[in-house]
This record gives sequence, structure tokens and C-alpha cells, in this order.
Amino acid sequence: MPDVQSLVREKAQAAHDAAVAMSILRSGEKNKALLAMAQALVTHAEEILQANAEDMARAQANAMKTSMQDRLRLTPERIAGMAEGLRQVAQLKDPVGEVIGGSTLPNGLTITKVRVPIGVVGIIYEARPNVTADAIGLCLKSGNTVVLKGGSEALHSNRTIAKILSEAAQKEGVPAGAVQFIDVTDRQAVTELIRMNGLVDVVIPRGSARLIQAVVQNATVPVIETGAGVCHTFVDETADCDMARKIAINAKVQRPSVCNAMETLLVHENVAQNFLPAMLDDFFKAGVTIFGCEKTQKFDEKVQPATDEDWATEYGDLRLSIKIVSGIDEALSHIARYGTRHSECIVTRDMQNAKRFQAEVDAAVVYVNASTRFTDGFEFGFGAEIGISTQKLHARGPMALPELTSYKYLVNGDGQIRG
Amino acid sequence: MPDVQSLVREKAQAAHDAAVAMSILRSGEKNKALLAMAQALVTHAEEILQANAEDMARAQANAMKTSMQDRLRLTPERIAGMAEGLRQVAQLKDPVGEVIGGSTLPNGLTITKVRVPIGVVGIIYEARPNVTADAIGLCLKSGNTVVLKGGSEALHSNRTIAKILSEAAQKEGVPAGAVQFIDVTDRQAVTELIRMNGLVDVVIPRGSARLIQAVVQNATVPVIETGAGVCHTFVDETADCDMARKIAINAKVQRPSVCNAMETLLVHENVAQNFLPAMLDDFFKAGVTIFGCEKTQKFDEKVQPATDEDWATEYGDLRLSIKIVSGIDEALSHIARYGTRHSECIVTRDMQNAKRFQAEVDAAVVYVNASTRFTDGFEFGFGAEIGISTQKLHARGPMALPELTSYKYLVNGDGQIRG
Repeated sequence: MPDVQSLVREKAQAAHDAAVAMSILRSGEKNKALLAMAQALVTHAEEILQANAEDMARAQANAMKTSMQDRLRLTPERIAGMAEGLRQVAQLKDPVGEVIGGSTLPNGLTITKVRVPIGVVGIIYEARPNVTADAIGLCLKSGNTVVLKGGSEALHSNRTIAKILSEAAQKEGVPAGAVQFIDVTDRQAVTELIRMNGLVDVVIPRGSARLIQAVVQNATVPVIETGAGVCHTFVDETADCDMARKIAINAKVQRPSVCNAMETLLVHENVAQNFLPAMLDDFFKAGVTIFGCEKTQKFDEKVQPATDEDWATEYGDLRLSIKIVSGIDEALSHIARYGTRHSECIVTRDMQNAKRFQAEVDAAVVYVNASTRFTDGFEFGFGAEIGISTQKLHARGPMALPELTSYKYLVNGDGQIRG
Repeated sequence: MPDVQSLVREKAQAAHDAAVAMSILRSGEKNKALLAMAQALVTHAEEILQANAEDMARAQANAMKTSMQDRLRLTPERIAGMAEGLRQVAQLKDPVGEVIGGSTLPNGLTITKVRVPIGVVGIIYEARPNVTADAIGLCLKSGNTVVLKGGSEALHSNRTIAKILSEAAQKEGVPAGAVQFIDVTDRQAVTELIRMNGLVDVVIPRGSARLIQAVVQNATVPVIETGAGVCHTFVDETADCDMARKIAINAKVQRPSVCNAMETLLVHENVAQNFLPAMLDDFFKAGVTIFGCEKTQKFDEKVQPATDEDWATEYGDLRLSIKIVSGIDEALSHIARYGTRHSECIVTRDMQNAKRFQAEVDAAVVYVNASTRFTDGFEFGFGAEIGISTQKLHARGPMALPELTSYKYLVNGDGQIRG
């Protein structure tokens, strides 16, 4: 057995070697491959389900949490969903080759700024096997080659999906080597992958905050940080209380496990008396556990005291912290301190405060009078999503195909030299 | 004396604390400040020259290389040049607030994608004090706050320039804290600065390949890699030999110390006999030392043998390596192996080869029939340059004001929730 470093280097080198051929593949060829890949998932559904059954058996033997088991489990419907996802990616506009700028210089040189693939994209993810198909589809469509390192819990499922997709893609002219799957469970593989400068152009970690921070702290390859969301909704003094309640309930309970769900509700002290009793009632009926500041606790004895840690926690479930604030200044400074630059919302009728909130909150998406749950590539109309960036370099917020590209300048002359 | 870590953290925190106020400063206010800063440099020229004299005295005592002494030296003219640079930045279009996309969703939500400052920019540089003024000007104009760590050789000069500019900026309403200068020579300060996640949003190293690699290898904050340029010119079979000679001479000798200068000339074997004798003559007349492959050596006994290391070296002076290749395939694979993704050129009359070279070379700027020396923010018409990115994330090639920005999504609704 080769050592992990050699294995990862070999995979990264293969993806690197395939990158130029992949970058110049035409849209029509890529789309044909994506459709064939979708078909291959359906054709080989039984093989995928068998591999998944092995992962599920081990998960059950290891007493994996039910919610994690649910993410790991594949069904014929879920496989059909993965295939449909690939067909949708085939329909999307190819970002590669788009001319995004340019000029003719006084000396006659023409400069054309054109979108090109990033090159080799590393994807590091956890127990959701559908990410394997999503990531391969999006990377190939945007002309990139891809190196995948999934969670060990899903090894059999991921390996099988990657093999099926890679074979189907190759049959349709995608260069051999364009899809690389790191077929080991050793965590060392992640450490190696994120230090393959010169072979890997970017790594995108998808999963828990712990995984993402480990990648950010140890990578020498550029990273796009995704995911962690401690999202706030601030109910301003002038808010429409009914609207605010609907937005807050939706932001918390419609799907509490995702990163754009609300974790903290901030309430202007002048509206608390009108707003909070019915709001708390809604939350309790929905099964939400509330951690509140001292003032909030006075509204209902079921409100538990919030600690400093609560303000900084992405619960990801039916828990919520609530703080009564003296106004927009305190709301802004609370968000600046505890927010994760993901999605933040103000509910208000005050135009001045709406404008100020959007200008001063440092986050990927800043809402006025709408649920933070809309932060999503599909909801935004991008047709796809590879993740939600919470950093400010390269891409911010929902990332789709254009965010998987770079650009280069093509300069054409007829002998120009610099004076 | 506080320890270096605390000192750097304090500076980064101050820049972070000033970031929101800086981000919402209006263009008119920023421009007024830039003009006042330019004036302050002129008014305080004597103070700057005195500080620079201290640095120069130490440089001479330490027998610093003459070329480095030249970079370090300030004169009244150079100070006037720095001031003029700030005035030019004041004239440039402010990228902040530019709407770069948006849509109205079927549910009525409006999405506006708007340019915002990155936040806190760390600049790590070496012995050129003019970088202090350039970087402060560009960062403030683009609404960022800045933390500077310059080379210890220029400490007195940099400190004085930063102090003068910071004071002048503050008088005109730039938030206190927006300009931070790390006033120590300890190299540990760099290590601390590049790990200030949560306080510093990006670091841009400017200087030697060694400095840049040290930053890339050790940073946990996102980095924009700049600079190293092993640039090639490929003279194709069908090249106009006179044009090729002019382009090659310009790319090598017009300013050999800069990153967009040519380091390797690749010559198609079928044109070598026609092209090389006069070309070598030009180079020798210009004082260029040539390291060539075996075939090249046969053209002139003054050609020295090239080693594998030569192909990978950014000489930065009047040395050049030359290789005779069998055609465009060998040229492309040589560039893929030894190029640094900076600037590459083909001289050809063959449209097919021109197109293929531009499609397949993975570099920031790919030229047909023009000198690589044009890779420059001013030459490209950007009006400024903070560096030349050789990575593919966020920014590639010459970086000016827009490359110092990120974006955020402003979403406006009237109570929309997700179904």
C-alpha cells in the first residue's frame, strides 16, 4: 500500500495533468457528458444502493446519530434526484469563455478579459454522498478537474458514485484524470490535499465548522471558507409585528439544520411588549427552546438564561437565543461581534434604519423584511450551488458556476513593445 | 515593551474596528483626504528625507547592495512622485457601491449585488518606502483599512510616511485607526499578522519570491500571491523575425529587474537558422548573458550551457535562457512546467497557433505578438496597481482598485418567507 502522501500527490497530479484538456472542452461536449453521467447513476442505481447499504450497516453498528444516518442514506428517489441535479447542471449556461471586460489601448493592443476554469478544485466534505455527484457535475461543467475527499462514513457510497460518474464522463470525451476520488479513510489525506500547492488551485471544505476551521488553519492552497452561519434577525422599533413573527418563525423552524437558519433574534426594547408574547408563543408551539437575556426571561418563565456562548453558537436545531436591545446601534454591534458574516436581517418600516443596516452589517447577504432562509444558490436563481462563502475573497454568499471560474487576459498585438 | 503578538493584534484590532466607518465613507470625502495626504507629503518632505537618511546610513554601514540602496533612497523628486501618485488615485473611479448584478425573484424579492471594501488589508513588503504611500492610498480609496509591515531596512522612512499620511487623512475625516503601521523590525510580526483571522481579511505580500512563499506557506488569513515571473516568449515557425527580435529585446532588456520581463526565449527549430544569429547579436550587444540548450550553443560559442535550474529561474537581470523546441507542443509543455502563470507570449503569423497558445497557456496574461512588459496596471489602463496576482482566486494579473473590493448581496422584501 502506498503511503497517503504519495497517493494524494498522485491523484492531484493526475487532476493537474488533465486540467488543460478539461479547460478547453466545449460546452456541448460537457453537457453531453453530464447527461450520460445522469443516466449512468440511474442505470447503476442498484450498485450504488448496495454500496450505501455497507455504509449504513457500519453506521448502525457504530450507533451513528439518526440525523447523520439520514444524510448518509440513499434511496432510489435520492439517486434519481442526484441524476436530475446533473441534468439541471447540463442546462445551465457555461461560464467558461464569457468575455467579462476588455479594451483597446492607445498603442493598438487589444485586451480581452475572459472567464477560464480555476483548474483543479479540491472538495473536502463529510457524510452526504450526494455531494459527490453535485461537486463532480459543477466542477466539470465549469471546466475544472476535481479531487474529492469525502467522509469515511460514506466511503463505499462515494467511491461507487465517483467511479460510475468518472467512467461515464470518460466515455463521452471528458479527459481521463478529470475526476479523482481519494479512496482512503485516513485523515492525513486531507492534510496532504490542502498543501498541494502547484497542483491544486483551490480547496472548498463543506461540512461542520470543525472541518472547515481545520482546513482554513492548515491549508497552504487557497481556501474558500464556507458555511458556518450564526444568523440574526433584528426586529426594529417600527417593525410590522405580524410580518416580523412570520419571518422569524420561518427563519428558525422551516429547516433549522441549515446554515441560513436564524440562531439569534434581536428585539428593539420599544417593540418587545407588543411583539414578544405572541412571538414566544409561536416558538413554543413549534417546539423551539428559547435562551434569552434577562429582559427576555421576564416575558415567560420557560425562557432559559442565555450565556455568552449561546450568542456565538450555531445551534442547527430547534434552539434559539433572544436578546432585547436598546436600538439599531446595539443590534449592529451584537451582530458585528457574534455574526459569522453569512446572512443577517432587519425587519423595519424605517427607511433610514434599513439603509444603515444594509450598509453597516458585514455579511454575505443582508436582508430587509425577508427570511434569511433565502440565502441559497437555487433560491437566488443561480440554478446550482457548490456552497455558501463566508469569506470576502473571490466569492461571497451562494457560489454557483461563475464562482468556480477565474479569468485571464488575452492580449493581441502586432509587434508592440514598451517604451 | 509589549510582546510582538500583542502589538500586532492591537494594530489589527484597531484596523478592524475602523473598518465599518471606513467602508461607508463617501468618495468625495476619501478624495479630499487623498489630496490632503499628497500635500502633507510635500509639506513634510524634509522630515521624510531625514528619516530616509537614517535608513540610508544604516544601509551603507551594512554594505547593502547598490540596487537595493537605490530602491531605498528617497529624493525630493521621488517624494513629489509619491504625492502625484496619491493625487492620481483621487482621480480614479471609486469601485465601492458599484452595482455589479442583481435580479428580482418571482416572489418579489429584489437582489442587488454591490461592491464593498474587503475590510482590513494587510500589506507585507520590503525595502521600497514608496509602497507605503501607494498602499495606503489604494486601500483607503477602495474603502479598506490597512495594516502595513514594511522591511526593516526602511523602518524610519516607512514610519514617517505612514505617520504623516495617517495624520493628514484623519484631519479630513478618515476614521482614526484606518492606517496601522507595525513599527517593529522583528520578523515575528509578519507571522502574527498573517494569522489574524477574524481581524485581517486578506494579506498581500509584495517583494521577493522568498517573502511571498513564506507568507503563502504560513498564512491562515487569505493571501493574494503576487509577483514571481518566469515569463517566456515563444518564436513560432511562422514568426516575423524582425518583429520577434524587437519584442524579445524589449521583453528582456527594457527593464530586466521587473516580474514581467522575459526569462526564457523558446525558438521553433525551423526558424532558428533565420532568427537566432541576429537575435543573439542583439542580446550580446545589449550585454545579455545567454544560457542555451545544446542546439542553441551551436549558434555561438558565447552561449553558456543552460541547466535545469536555469529554466526555472527568475533572473531579474541581464541573463536569459534560450531553448530551441520542436514546435508549439514542446513550447506549451515547457511553459506548463517552468512558467509561473504570470505572462507568456507567442510571436506567430499562424492564427491557429495563436488561438491555441492563448487557450492552453495557464497564465494571467497571454500575449500574441507583443512584449510581456505590458503586464502592468498602468499600461492596462487601470490607473493604479497594488500588485500582479499569479494565483487564480479572486484576482489574476494586474490588480487595481476593483480587485481591492469584495461584494455583498442586498435583499429587499416585504415579508417573504421560504416555502
